[in-house]
Amino acid sequence: MNHAHLTWKEIEKKQAYSCRVFSVHDTLSQAPDGSIKTFSVIDAPDWAIVIPVLETEGGLKFLMVRQWRHGSRTLSLEFPGGVLEPGESEEDGARRELAEETGWLAAQIIKLGELSPNPAIMSNRVHVYLAKDLTYTGKQDLDDDEYVDVEQIPIEEVLKGMGKEPYIHALMASALCLYLAFGSGA
Amino acid sequence: MNHAHLTWKEIEKKQAYSCRVFSVHDTLSQAPDGSIKTFSVIDAPDWAIVIPVLETEGGLKFLMVRQWRHGSRTLSLEFPGGVLEPGESEEDGARRELAEETGWLAAQIIKLGELSPNPAIMSNRVHVYLAKDLTYTGKQDLDDDEYVDVEQIPIEEVLKGMGKEPYIHALMASALCLYLAFGSGA
Repeated sequence: MNHAHLTWKEIEKKQAYSCRVFSVHDTLSQAPDGSIKTFSVIDAPDWAIVIPVLETEGGLKFLMVRQWRHGSRTLSLEFPGGVLEPGESEEDGARRELAEETGWLAAQIIKLGELSPNPAIMSNRVHVYLAKDLTYTGKQDLDDDEYVDVEQIPIEEVLKGMGKEPYIHALMASALCLYLAFGSGA
Repeated sequence: MNHAHLTWKEIEKKQAYSCRVFSVHDTLSQAPDGSIKTFSVIDAPDWAIVIPVLETEGGLKFLMVRQWRHGSRTLSLEFPGGVLEPGESEEDGARRELAEETGWLAAQIIKLGELSPNPAIMSNRVHVYLAKDLTYTGKQDLDDDEYVDVEQIPIEEVLKGMGKEPYIHALMASALCLYLAFGSGA
């Protein structure tokens, strides 16, 4: 199907703000009807999210991290994840973030999908992985502004809690969606 | 449980950038150990996402909108949604966005949950609704920079496609997660 009647063309892009996590650009884009409009776009490196699944005597559990989030100014209970380093593969970044934040290593790591955190205003991607066959090393390696509690939560509890405190991180819900689709054989 | 060892305190906030969709603030926050660090926070009005479910002869379908996204510079196939207007209730905003983008009205609208689009860097919330008992009015009411195709997609196709083009919008995957949790009776 031809989507030319929906497709815009970016014709100018200028940096307007920058910090260590993202930068903002003012852009000009040409609409399908030829008119020109301004948009603001947030650029950032790609991110990885890892869903670590533990087989325990009490059933399947997710390994999750509880941490303060400076945007929402709340505590948030999340899957491990973070920013890919320059030149790092997506899978290596996923394994590294899991190890640094939780002290657990994954023997098996499976890509569940790739999403745009917010394609309306952000240009980067988030890569979502499932991690299995986990081994505990006991060694977290946190950044100097990271204060993180690692917790093991039954899968049903996370599914039931998503969309309410402390399960308020939309990107974690999006990762859980890919996990559920994967589990259903989709 | 006491989470004081994870909790930060924001002590300063200054606007550094602003456009019609969001603004960026430079903030200073005090860590649990007393040290002070800088963070950048993106403020925006709250958003609503609506999952409209149609009962058709071909089974259950989602009503979705295909549109250009200026962050990802791709077409994206999404649930209807958008920015809440000042003073508007979340539910009214959800109903309005559904009607404007698709020309369909919902007799039933059910809140599925509330998420932070990205609590690490954004302060706003996204409110997720399920819309049922839909009636077609034939009247879309698009903004002057909106070019939107409305499509009816079988639910299984969306679930299977999420995480790949054109189903790349993470917030739509997060909404679908809440829909799946709701359907499972969680």
